[in-house]
Amino acid sequence: MDRLPKTDRLILILKDLLDNPGRLFPLSFFSNRTGAAKSSISEDVALIRKALEANGLGQIRTVPGAAGGVLYLPGVREEERASLCRELVTALSDPRRILPGGFLYTSDIIFSPTWSNRIGRVFASWFAEEAPDYVITVETKGIPLALMTARALGAGLVIIRRDSRVTEGPVVTINYLSGSSGKIQTMSLPRRALRSGAKVLIVDDFMRAGGTAAGMLEIVREFDARACGIAVLIQTAEPSEKMVPKPTSLLTLKRIDVQKGQVDIEPTQV
Amino acid sequence: MDRLPKTDRLILILKDLLDNPGRLFPLSFFSNRTGAAKSSISEDVALIRKALEANGLGQIRTVPGAAGGVLYLPGVREEERASLCRELVTALSDPRRILPGGFLYTSDIIFSPTWSNRIGRVFASWFAEEAPDYVITVETKGIPLALMTARALGAGLVIIRRDSRVTEGPVVTINYLSGSSGKIQTMSLPRRALRSGAKVLIVDDFMRAGGTAAGMLEIVREFDARACGIAVLIQTAEPSEKMVPKPTSLLTLKRIDVQKGQVDIEPTQV
Repeated sequence: MDRLPKTDRLILILKDLLDNPGRLFPLSFFSNRTGAAKSSISEDVALIRKALEANGLGQIRTVPGAAGGVLYLPGVREEERASLCRELVTALSDPRRILPGGFLYTSDIIFSPTWSNRIGRVFASWFAEEAPDYVITVETKGIPLALMTARALGAGLVIIRRDSRVTEGPVVTINYLSGSSGKIQTMSLPRRALRSGAKVLIVDDFMRAGGTAAGMLEIVREFDARACGIAVLIQTAEPSEKMVPKPTSLLTLKRIDVQKGQVDIEPTQV
Repeated sequence: MDRLPKTDRLILILKDLLDNPGRLFPLSFFSNRTGAAKSSISEDVALIRKALEANGLGQIRTVPGAAGGVLYLPGVREEERASLCRELVTALSDPRRILPGGFLYTSDIIFSPTWSNRIGRVFASWFAEEAPDYVITVETKGIPLALMTARALGAGLVIIRRDSRVTEGPVVTINYLSGSSGKIQTMSLPRRALRSGAKVLIVDDFMRAGGTAAGMLEIVREFDARACGIAVLIQTAEPSEKMVPKPTSLLTLKRIDVQKGQVDIEPTQV
């Protein structure tokens, strides 16, 4: 193709990198795409790296060697994380979110592409160094957060089902005790969904006692995979002892007062 | 803040636009972020527009007036759509995907952040002119595609549940006939999940007879909302008459021969 002007090159390269976090691009990919020499591409990538890193927007990693190239890992500035927490606390404290039974309506937030993307990027920044192969969640409400986290990490997404479907082939099913309801629940995952030895990050929208996360840990072990962490959006202050190792959470829900119409939720203290 | 060099400005502006498809940014937002005058920001945006549009990567729209600004709408080149179809056909024709009962294993593809993002951007490009307020799907397998479509459209995401949960408040429930199984099934949506008068795009991973899509259409009408289209990844060739208006699909599944281990799937002819 014709050689593109430098500005166009920068824009094209940046778009490919941002659209594909965690994906390794050989410099020759951008040479072919823009008609520029690899040396020019190197300079462009250096400019992009400098601008992103100086502004806390993520990192560009260079992998040396014949199979090497460059890849983008999203970053989250501390200021951005803090402002996300503040905005979430404001949105979730709205008394109109209180549902009969003392539950909190959160679906509009956790299903929103904008919110879930922001939350997923924070989750990813917590575990980027671990470089998990998969993000795993159980249907349904955790899926958008898990997908956006996986996207930001350049990882795959695995969704555990509550029941086994005939359309997914042989499955592994476990029964587990839900800590909140005290009921026995079921989780299923197709045999082929997760390879043995994989490193996974567990993501969910909400944790009370941690029974669901404990079930996910069990199913992960059943596949001879291993979990490198548990990220949740909201954990409850009580019970303070969870059925799993301490999750990493953005928010802690202390109390919902149905009578007074008050939601007491705050950024999790670390 | 200090005035940033032009390259840094371009990179920061482009990143904000790409990260937030469909979101309107006042030029003053970028002025504050980069320390540059609005006139410089205008020039930067013009450069970005030119590079994106010349390369078929999307559009930058300018909204005039005091409440105006600029927004990014992702675009998909015809070449990109065609290559996505080819790659999907190759991946899905793998005989190892054939499951007992003549089903096709697709979860690894439709759950993958990379594939679902590419598919969602194509779905979004089909309906961008309609500017739907929400993308709607029914749990579980359609969720990643629906989320990525919503993200590319700058729309919200609404997820219909198969059963009603106590944690989502009052719900509207409908019963519908699954065209494939001939069984009565249930769908529920919280009252507050969809506002009356909203324009919605229906997204799903798979359509055989169209019973599920018909159920979604019914629930959309029940909320006094209206559907502007139905996008599915795979529709089956048979039955050729669906229970809903013709969906827009990427792929048509003609036949699965379990004995010979053959999957006959091809790009949908338009």
